Parts: sequence; C-alpha cells; structure tokens
Amino acid sequence: MEERYKPLIGVIGGVGPYAGLDFVRNIFSNTRALKDQEHLNTLLVSCPSIIPDRTKYLLDEEPVNPSGGLFESAKILYAAGARHAVVACNTAHSDRIFAPFCGMVKEAMPDMVIVNMLRACVDFIKKKHPEIKTLGLLATRGTYKSRVYGDYFKAAEGFSIIEPEPPGQDRIGQAIYSLDFGIKAHSNPVKAKACNILLYEGFRLLDRGARGLILGCTELPLAMDQEDFSAPVFNPGFLAARELIRLTAPSSLTEV
Amino acid sequence: MEERYKPLIGVIGGVGPYAGLDFVRNIFSNTRALKDQEHLNTLLVSCPSIIPDRTKYLLDEEPVNPSGGLFESAKILYAAGARHAVVACNTAHSDRIFAPFCGMVKEAMPDMVIVNMLRACVDFIKKKHPEIKTLGLLATRGTYKSRVYGDYFKAAEGFSIIEPEPPGQDRIGQAIYSLDFGIKAHSNPVKAKACNILLYEGFRLLDRGARGLILGCTELPLAMDQEDFSAPVFNPGFLAARELIRLTAPSSLTEV
Repeated sequence: MEERYKPLIGVIGGVGPYAGLDFVRNIFSNTRALKDQEHLNTLLVSCPSIIPDRTKYLLDEEPVNPSGGLFESAKILYAAGARHAVVACNTAHSDRIFAPFCGMVKEAMPDMVIVNMLRACVDFIKKKHPEIKTLGLLATRGTYKSRVYGDYFKAAEGFSIIEPEPPGQDRIGQAIYSLDFGIKAHSNPVKAKACNILLYEGFRLLDRGARGLILGCTELPLAMDQEDFSAPVFNPGFLAARELIRLTAPSSLTEV
Repeated sequence: MEERYKPLIGVIGGVGPYAGLDFVRNIFSNTRALKDQEHLNTLLVSCPSIIPDRTKYLLDEEPVNPSGGLFESAKILYAAGARHAVVACNTAHSDRIFAPFCGMVKEAMPDMVIVNMLRACVDFIKKKHPEIKTLGLLATRGTYKSRVYGDYFKAAEGFSIIEPEPPGQDRIGQAIYSLDFGIKAHSNPVKAKACNILLYEGFRLLDRGARGLILGCTELPLAMDQEDFSAPVFNPGFLAARELIRLTAPSSLTEV
C-alpha cells in the first residue's frame, strides 16, 4: 500500500516552525495543480523540542549539536517513505551542523537525497542571473560566523558575498530572535519593527554594491520579499522547494 | 530515542493541501512559545494523491471512499509516534467517510485519539456563546448533502443550522472548486471573486436569522475571517487545533 503515496517529499521543519510551513507552501505554490489530488505528497516533521538553536550552537552558547535532532527528524521521514528531503533552515547548512547530519543520513539511509538549499540557490543564480557576481547576505549571526555562504558562493563559484557590518548583523539577529519584536516570537503577523530593520539592512547591502540579495534565513521571507526591492531577491527555500519538485515530479514544476 | 519528541500531534492534511498548512498554523499560533523549542512537535502528512475528493464521493460522483486514504495517512502519523490526530477537512467528517475511517483507526490503532472538528466547534459555542442557538453554515455541497453539521448541532444540542438556498450552495461550491477562481485552484492568493461570493453568502445567512457563522470547510478561512463580520465567526479548524493542544500540552495553550 505504501507505494501508493510515492514519491513523498520530506521536509524537516521546526527550525523554526513557521519557516517550515513557509517551505511546504513553496512546494505547493510551485506545483502545477488545479485540484487537491494533483498536489505532491509531502510530509512535514516539525519537532523543535529535539533541535537546539542552530545559531547558539555555532556561537558556542549551546553545547548540543542540532544535527542529532535533524537526523531523528530525517528518520521519521525515511520510515514513512520519503527519499528526498530538505532541512528548512539556512543556519543548519553550516558545516559544523550539516556535515555530521549528512554523514548520519548517508550511513543510516544511503538512498535518502538531502537537497542543499544553498546549492539550489547558487545553481539558480548562475543559470538565471549570470551577470550577478556580488550578493548581499541577510542571515543569522550563526550563518555569518560559520561563513557557510562564503564557502559555497565565494570559493567555489567566483561570487563575492557582502555581509552587513557587525552592528547590522546584530540588528538582523534581533529582528529574528528578539522576544519583543523578532520573527521567531512574533511571526503571525510579523512586527513592523522587524520588517523595518531588515529592509534597512537590505538597502544598505545594495548601496554597498550588492547586485542581488539572499534571504539567508528561512524566517526572512516571512517579513520581506521581491516587491520590497528593485534588485533580485533570492529565497533559497523557494529555490530548494523547486529543486525537490524537479527531482521527484518534474512535470509538476511550474514555470518561473 | 523516539520518546524525545513525544507528545507528537498528527495532522492529516492534503484535503486540501493549503488547508492542511492552515491547520498546522492554527496549532502554532495557539501555542505559548517565544522560541522554536517551545513549539509543540507536530507531523503533517499531506498525501492528496491517495484521497479522492470528499464532496464528489458524497454526491456519488466518485466511487472510492476517501476513508481509505485518510486511514493510510493516519498510519504514517501513528508509526511516527503520534497518538492524537485530526483530519483537516470538514467534509471528511461526514458519516459516510468519517465513520469507516474512525472504525479502521480504532481497529488498527486503538490508542489513537482522533479529534473531531465539529465536536470541538459545538463544545466551544456551548461554552463561550451559550446565547447562540441559530448558526449559518458555509460549506461544500458534500457537507450540506451529508447533513453532518445538522446531525451534530441540531439533534444533539438544540441548535438550528441555516443553510444557503440551493443556488447559494452552488455558488459556494464554485468559490471552493472552480478551476477559474476557486480556492482549491487559487489559494495563494485567494481570488477576489471567491471572497466576494463567500462574503455575500455569509451576510445572507445572517440576514436570514443566523446569530453566528460556521466556516464549515477548511478552505474558507483562507478567504474570510472574523474581521469580515460583526457576528461571531466559528472556525472548526482553529477550535480543533486548540483541542489538540489542550489534550497533549495543556500548559502551552494560549488564552482566547
């Protein structure tokens, strides 16, 4: 019976919870479907209680590697039949988290394909915007510190990444994490103060020479999108959702 | 290890896909949480390919009972560790679908609690709005035909349910199912034409004596909410999400 709902796309969410929902929404909205039954079978596991904060771990403020909880989430997806999955969190793609996670997955479930959000983003920019080589990065302090975007974009692909100065990085961190006005505590709706900070930092990066912006945290698309900027805005979650569809049901992928 | 992510709330989505996301959003937004780790562990299974259209089945336009696909979805949730679940579709609560579904669940997984959205809605209205006895129902033709709301509200609880006249029921069906402008085909964003029909039919029910409105289809909250009406609007999905939290993690339930 299980074969009836294959292929099954797996989403490791909960990092954060609303960002996981936004990722699944990206899968649905990039699918050619006029009725329920034409949508792709998808499983979202949102178990935040077992996944410590990724940024705190990278800043050495949290001892437990989130990779273990991500792996447990992946096991749930695999057991249900998913063979393609994504981690709906940019910070979790940092090497200290993503490498051990992928190692555990490869060992335990060798036929599970983990789509890399950053790789999906690099591939899209190279293909659709070959003229853009300088990108502004909006992200968490954990992502900045881990230099994961630098590793992917700068070294391998000839891109250069512009990051906010440290005070700007802190402000973005506040826009995401503040208990008073941050997106993680107030996602529904997002507070104006968080939006304002993010828009300001986005424009600053463009003023400093970025030709496009990367929304390098899955919380950010909840607060800002392409309509806020004249330069191209790249959402790795959106692009990874399209990659998952391309891999599992290519004829269902919408045009962009 | 599995115990680490208990309790795990299960959501049978895909009926339709965006409505399933909206249901999970209701769980998150009714949870006291200021950081990711405080959110409740939740699993959303969205396998629309194995669940035929509920309304078509109830109108005898589809031979396969959707209960089988709902049961397979429930099995995925149970195998992952969920012991409380919901079917995020009002029409699926009709007796011809819900009774065999619950029967299969009870047989195969006797400790699985299926929260009934209609029951959650009745209980809330009795407790919070005891003065309201006459309710207007916005729903699919399948739900109207099955009289499932009538069974729950009218007979057992002394409520009376006002339904739109047949042409209004057809218009609401179009607002949900039309390939040109219906919510199932165009959810992100919902088309104005669908919203306009639903608002008109809602006001008609109030004009005819309803003291409150039930959004009796999980697609409807994507198009309308309390702000559109001065009378109370009841969203069974919202109320069932609160019931799931109350059952699994009562201290995490927000005030309303």
